[in-house]
Amino acid sequence: MGKGGEGSGDGKEENMAAWLVSVNTLKIQPYQLPPLGPRDVRVRMKAVGICGSDVQYLKRMSSAHFVVKEPMVIGHECAGVIEEVGSEVKSLAVGDRVALEPGISCSRCKYCKGGRYNLCQEMKFFATPPVHGSLANQVVHPAELCFKLPDNVSLEEGAMCEPLSVGVHACRRAGVGPETNVLIMGAGPIGLVTMFAARAFGASKIVITDVNDHRLSVAKSLGADAIVKVSTNMEGVDEEVIQIQKAMGADIDLTIDCAGFSKTMSTALNATRAGGRVCLVGMGHHDLTVPLTPAAAREVDIVGVFRYKDTWPLCIEFLRTGKIDVKPLITHRFGFSQEEVEEAFEVSARGRDAIKVMFNL
Amino acid sequence: MGKGGEGSGDGKEENMAAWLVSVNTLKIQPYQLPPLGPRDVRVRMKAVGICGSDVQYLKRMSSAHFVVKEPMVIGHECAGVIEEVGSEVKSLAVGDRVALEPGISCSRCKYCKGGRYNLCQEMKFFATPPVHGSLANQVVHPAELCFKLPDNVSLEEGAMCEPLSVGVHACRRAGVGPETNVLIMGAGPIGLVTMFAARAFGASKIVITDVNDHRLSVAKSLGADAIVKVSTNMEGVDEEVIQIQKAMGADIDLTIDCAGFSKTMSTALNATRAGGRVCLVGMGHHDLTVPLTPAAAREVDIVGVFRYKDTWPLCIEFLRTGKIDVKPLITHRFGFSQEEVEEAFEVSARGRDAIKVMFNL
Amino acid sequence: MGKGGEGSGDGKEENMAAWLVSVNTLKIQPYQLPPLGPRDVRVRMKAVGICGSDVQYLKRMSSAHFVVKEPMVIGHECAGVIEEVGSEVKSLAVGDRVALEPGISCSRCKYCKGGRYNLCQEMKFFATPPVHGSLANQVVHPAELCFKLPDNVSLEEGAMCEPLSVGVHACRRAGVGPETNVLIMGAGPIGLVTMFAARAFGASKIVITDVNDHRLSVAKSLGADAIVKVSTNMEGVDEEVIQIQKAMGADIDLTIDCAGFSKTMSTALNATRAGGRVCLVGMGHHDLTVPLTPAAAREVDIVGVFRYKDTWPLCIEFLRTGKIDVKPLITHRFGFSQEEVEEAFEVSARGRDAIKVMFNL
Amino acid sequence: MGKGGEGSGDGKEENMAAWLVSVNTLKIQPYQLPPLGPRDVRVRMKAVGICGSDVQYLKRMSSAHFVVKEPMVIGHECAGVIEEVGSEVKSLAVGDRVALEPGISCSRCKYCKGGRYNLCQEMKFFATPPVHGSLANQVVHPAELCFKLPDNVSLEEGAMCEPLSVGVHACRRAGVGPETNVLIMGAGPIGLVTMFAARAFGASKIVITDVNDHRLSVAKSLGADAIVKVSTNMEGVDEEVIQIQKAMGADIDLTIDCAGFSKTMSTALNATRAGGRVCLVGMGHHDLTVPLTPAAAREVDIVGVFRYKDTWPLCIEFLRTGKIDVKPLITHRFGFSQEEVEEAFEVSARGRDAIKVMFNL
Repeated sequence: MGKGGEGSGDGKEENMAAWLVSVNTLKIQPYQLPPLGPRDVRVRMKAVGICGSDVQYLKRMSSAHFVVKEPMVIGHECAGVIEEVGSEVKSLAVGDRVALEPGISCSRCKYCKGGRYNLCQEMKFFATPPVHGSLANQVVHPAELCFKLPDNVSLEEGAMCEPLSVGVHACRRAGVGPETNVLIMGAGPIGLVTMFAARAFGASKIVITDVNDHRLSVAKSLGADAIVKVSTNMEGVDEEVIQIQKAMGADIDLTIDCAGFSKTMSTALNATRAGGRVCLVGMGHHDLTVPLTPAAAREVDIVGVFRYKDTWPLCIEFLRTGKIDVKPLITHRFGFSQEEVEEAFEVSARGRDAIKVMFNL
Repeated sequence: MGKGGEGSGDGKEENMAAWLVSVNTLKIQPYQLPPLGPRDVRVRMKAVGICGSDVQYLKRMSSAHFVVKEPMVIGHECAGVIEEVGSEVKSLAVGDRVALEPGISCSRCKYCKGGRYNLCQEMKFFATPPVHGSLANQVVHPAELCFKLPDNVSLEEGAMCEPLSVGVHACRRAGVGPETNVLIMGAGPIGLVTMFAARAFGASKIVITDVNDHRLSVAKSLGADAIVKVSTNMEGVDEEVIQIQKAMGADIDLTIDCAGFSKTMSTALNATRAGGRVCLVGMGHHDLTVPLTPAAAREVDIVGVFRYKDTWPLCIEFLRTGKIDVKPLITHRFGFSQEEVEEAFEVSARGRDAIKVMFNL
Repeated sequence: MGKGGEGSGDGKEENMAAWLVSVNTLKIQPYQLPPLGPRDVRVRMKAVGICGSDVQYLKRMSSAHFVVKEPMVIGHECAGVIEEVGSEVKSLAVGDRVALEPGISCSRCKYCKGGRYNLCQEMKFFATPPVHGSLANQVVHPAELCFKLPDNVSLEEGAMCEPLSVGVHACRRAGVGPETNVLIMGAGPIGLVTMFAARAFGASKIVITDVNDHRLSVAKSLGADAIVKVSTNMEGVDEEVIQIQKAMGADIDLTIDCAGFSKTMSTALNATRAGGRVCLVGMGHHDLTVPLTPAAAREVDIVGVFRYKDTWPLCIEFLRTGKIDVKPLITHRFGFSQEEVEEAFEVSARGRDAIKVMFNL
Repeated sequence: MGKGGEGSGDGKEENMAAWLVSVNTLKIQPYQLPPLGPRDVRVRMKAVGICGSDVQYLKRMSSAHFVVKEPMVIGHECAGVIEEVGSEVKSLAVGDRVALEPGISCSRCKYCKGGRYNLCQEMKFFATPPVHGSLANQVVHPAELCFKLPDNVSLEEGAMCEPLSVGVHACRRAGVGPETNVLIMGAGPIGLVTMFAARAFGASKIVITDVNDHRLSVAKSLGADAIVKVSTNMEGVDEEVIQIQKAMGADIDLTIDCAGFSKTMSTALNATRAGGRVCLVGMGHHDLTVPLTPAAAREVDIVGVFRYKDTWPLCIEFLRTGKIDVKPLITHRFGFSQEEVEEAFEVSARGRDAIKVMFNL
C-alpha cells in the first residue's frame, strides 16, 4: 500500500476529484494529492454529502464572503477508509473507517489557544477557497481530524457528522439542556439536524416552523413536538408569535433560527421569553431589520455560530448510542461519475423532497 | 420620629411630590404616603436626579412600552435619610443616610427565584406607571431596598447609584474584566457611567464615540483612552469602523451601544472582534436594520440589558473606595419649588452641557 | 372546604402529626396548624417519604449541625391535595394535587436575590428544627412552593420530587450533559436518584460503585452502564481506581460522591480526569483525609451541594415525560397509625432491601 | 546574527547553561542548542529568575511527581533578546525583547483543542524532566511563546511574567472581580503575585495570612488591606477563622491557599462564605485532612490550578499600564558564573528576606 510516487498517491491509479471550474460547471478530473506528512493520513473517500454551500459555490462561485477564483475540488461532508498513515501517526491504522473534520486550524493564534479554533483566521477548510475539498477518490488529511467510526456507525452516517456538527455546536453555544424549550425556525437539513441535536442535549419541548408543508411533516415524523406553518409576510409576525407560543404551551427559552431572514429573526426575538436566547444559524440575508431594542430590553440575548469545534467525538457517540439517527435524512444517493455528480447537484439544488444527497464512492 | 396620622406621614407637615399630570405638565402637589409596613422604612428624600425616562414621560406621557394614564409622582434616582422604620426592620435606624433601589419585585416568580429579579413581570418600580416615583419630600420603601451610605459618600452620590447601576449591570452581563478592550457608543450620561463601570471592572482599554464634540471632550477628561467622533450617516459605517479600530489599537472585545440606532449597532457589530460581544443598552429606535448575519457568523454575540439587579452594594463600594467618582457628572442642581422643578426638567431635556440634573430637597 | 375554627384547620377533625418527642420516640399527636396566610394553601397530605435525615433525627435528635431541642413534627418528602387556598392565591385551587417544596427562604438576602436561595441563612425548612415537618394529616404552606402534578404523575411520585431534587441539583451544579461520563459513588437512595438525574441530563456513560452487591444489582437493573464493587479499605484506592476507569472505558469527566468518606473522595479525586469535577453530595464524615493537592494540580474541581433550588418543575417534567421513573425506588408502604409509623422508621433505618419507605395517609 | 554552525548556535561562542547534574550540584557547562525550526526563534537570555521548583529539583532531584533522571538544564522564568528567527516567523524580529512562556503543548489533544492546554499530557516544559530549561546564554523556542515587551517593561519584569502567571491563572479560574473579597493564605512569592493579580482583577478587599511577620509586613507594604498572623497549629483553626473574618470585615468570597497544608485548607474552607470558592495553589502536602463535608454542604467549591495558560499578554499589559509592579519582588540579583549560580540558589533556598532571586546574564 501507498508506495508514493508523486505526492502520496498510490501510483497505480490516478486520483480523481470533482472540480468546480466555473459557474454551474463541475468536472471530474485528476487531483494530485499533497505529500503525506508525518501526522497525516491518506483516506479513500467512501461517502461524501452535498451541502448547501457546495450548491452555492456551484451556482455563483461564492458562498458568504468566500469567492472561488481558481478551479477547486468541491465537497466537505465526508468519511472513508484509511489507506496510509504518516510516520508519527499512532492513533489510526490502515483499514480504519473514519469521519473527517474538514478544517485545519493554525493552533497558535489566540482563538486556537483559547478553545475557539473555529474562529481561527488561518483556517484551511475543505472546499473553502482556495483550499481543495474532499469529493475525490482520496484525500490527505491530518490524523487528528480523522475520527474512527464504531462498527455500528456506517460511513454515510460518518459523513453526516459534518452537518450534524452544526446543530451540535449551536446547541452547545446556546446552552440546550433538559430545562430548555426550543423553537427551531426552518425545517431544512440544518433545522432537522439542529432538532436532533437539541433532543440529544435533553431539550424539553421542541417546536419547529417552516413555510413548507412537506418539510414540516418530515420534521413532525422525525420527532418535533409540534410544527407551525409560517409565511414570509412581515405583517404576520405578531400573529405567528401567538400561534407558536400556543404550540409550545410553555415559555420558549431558546429559539434557533436556521433561516436567517428579517421575518424569522423578528419572530424569534418576539417569541422568546424574557431572559431567553436566540441563536442565529441560518444566513438568509446579510442585513436584517428586526426589533432588536425591545428584545434587548427583555434580556433576550443573541448567540452566533460559525461552523463548529471539537464536535466529531460527540456526534459519533450520539450515532453509536442511537440517541440520534441521521439515516432518514439521506434521501438520495449517487455514484461518482460525471453524469451522476451533475445530477446529484441538480437534485440537491432543487430542494423539494431532497434532504441530504450523498455520494457513494 | 413619625407619630403617624394618615398613612405613615409625619402629620405635622404635608408630604409634597412632583406629579406628572399631563404632557409637559408637572405639579408639586400633596402626596399621601401608603402605610408603613413592618419591613418598610419612611425616607426623607434629600437628592433626586432626573433620568432620560423622566423627561420622556413628561414630553409624551410614555417611555418604552409604559404609558402614564393617571397622574403619577415622577422620579426614581434618589437618596435620603431614614425617618421611621417598620416594626421588623433591624438593618436600618432613624437617621441613616440611604440610597434607594427603585424596584420591588415579587420574590416568587421564576425570575426572582432564579436570580434575575429585574425581569420579574410583577415589578413595582418608582415612576413606572402606575407606580408612583420618589421626587417627593418623603417616600415609604422596603428596608431591603434602602442601602446605607458610608460617611464618605454623599447623598447626591447615593442618588447616582441608580444611573451607575445601569453601567454596572451592563458590565456584569457583558463580562468586563482586565482582558476586555471596550468600545462605548455614546457619551451621554449612560455612556459615561458605563465607562466608569467598565474601568472599575478592570477594562483594559476604553474607546468612546459620539456625534457631539463636547460630550467627547468630557468623556476624554473623565478617563476614556481615546475618543472618536462619528456621524449619523449610515454610509459612514465602514470608514468609522476602521477609525475606531485604529483608535483602540487592539482587538475590540466588547462594544456597549448606549445609543441604540441602526447606525450605532451596525458599527458595533462590525467593529467587534470575532468571538466578542455587543451589549445593547441604548434604546434609540425600536426596529434596527443591522448586519446581523455576518456578525453571528463571526460569533459576535449580542447581550441585552434591562435595568439592573443587586447593584447598589457594588456601586456604593465603588464610590466609597474612589474607584468611581460620579461627582463630575452632576452638572446642575435645583431646589424643590414648582419653578425650579420646571426649570430643571427643561435643562435636562435640552441636553447640551447638562449631564445629570439633581434636585436637593 | 375549610371554614376555619382555630388556625386554618377544618374544625371538624383534629389534625394529627408524627412528633419526634425524644430519642427513638415518635408519637402521633394533635398538631394545630398555623393560620392560613393570604398566599398560603392548606394541603391534605397523601404521600410522605422517609429520608435518611428523618432517621438520623429519630436516632440521635440531630442531623448535620441541626439539633432537635423541642418536640418537632417530622417529615419533609411529601405531596397532597389542596383543601383551602389563601385570599391571594390564584395559581392553585381546591382539589389540586401538589408536590411540596419544603423550604421557605427569606427572599430578601443576597443569596435569595442572587438565585441561590438554598443558601439563605433564614430558611425555614420542614422538619429542620425548630420548624415542624409534614408527616401530618394537613399542613399549611406557601402556594408558590406547591407544584401541581399532571394527571399521569401520582402523589407518591410527587413526594419523590424531594429526593430526586437532590440529584437534579447536583447534576445542575456539576454541569452534567451529553458529553459527561459520570461516576457515582454509592448506590443508596441518593446515588440512585442522582443516576436517574444524570441520565435525564443526557450523561453519556454512568458507572456506579457501592460496597453492597444488592444495591449494585438494583443500580444495574435501573440503568447503570456498569457497576463496580468497592471496599471501605483505604489501601484499595489505587486498584479500585483502575477497575473503575476500566469499567468506564473512557475518561471520567465527573464523579458524584454520594457517600462522603475519605475512601470514596480519595477514589473520586484520583479517578476523575484532569480538568474534571468531583461533586460531594454524601456526608459520611465531617473531616476527610484526601489527596487534595494532586487533584488540584490536575485542575479537578470540587463542587458542593446543599439541598436544591427551583427543582420541582424540572422533576415533575421528568416524571411526566417518563424520562425518569421513580416508582421502582418505592419499596415499602405504610399507613399513618402509631404502629405503622414506628415500623416504617425501623424498616427505613435497617436499610437492607429498603430504598424508599413511603406513608400513604 | 546566527550564521549557524552546530545547531542554531552562533558558532563564534559556546552556549553555556546551568546543568542540574545531581543532588545539590549545579554545573555551568556547554549546552548545544537544538536546530532552529521554521517557527522558532533563538533568544539570548538576559534575565532568569529562580522558582521554588528549581530549588526543589536541586535539593532532591524531583518536584511534585517529576523526577530528574538525566542531567538537565535548570530554569524557566526568563526573558531575553531575539538573535535569530526561523524562516516562517513574521511576528518577531532580531533585536526584539521578549518574555518566554516555558511550555510547548501538543496542540492536538482534547485539552489543547478545548482551550486548556496547560493540562496537555504531552507538554514540554522548560526544566521539567526530561526537558531542558532556560538558565543558559541562549535558548531556541517557538516564536508563538515569545512575547514582545513594550519599551517601559524591563527584561527582569519580563521574566517575572512567569510567576505572575500563576497568580493570574488562579484569579481567572477562581473568578476574581470587583465583587470578590479575597483571602490569601501565604505571603511568599506566589502569595504576593496572587495578591497583585487579585488587585488587578479588581478584587474589592484582600486579606493575607502567613506564619512569618516579615512576609506579612512586606505584604502589607505591597498593598494588602489587612494581614493576619497565623500558626501551624491545627487547634487554632476556629479562632483564626474569627480573626480573619474580622480582619476582612465582610464576607470572604474567595480564599486562595498558596500554602497547601491541612491547616491552611481547613482555615480556608471554614472562613469562606457559603457559596464562595477556595482555590488551592500551594502544594505543601499531598494528602490533606480537612472539613470537606461541611464546606461542601455550604456549597463552598474548590478550584484547582496547574500552571497557567495564555497569560503572558495579560501579564505584560498589567506591567505596561502599571496596574502591577513586580519590581519590589526582585530582592536579589546575581551574574551567571559558577559561584554566583551556587550562591543564588543558596539565597533562594534559605528564604528569609529573599522573595525573588534573579540572574542577569
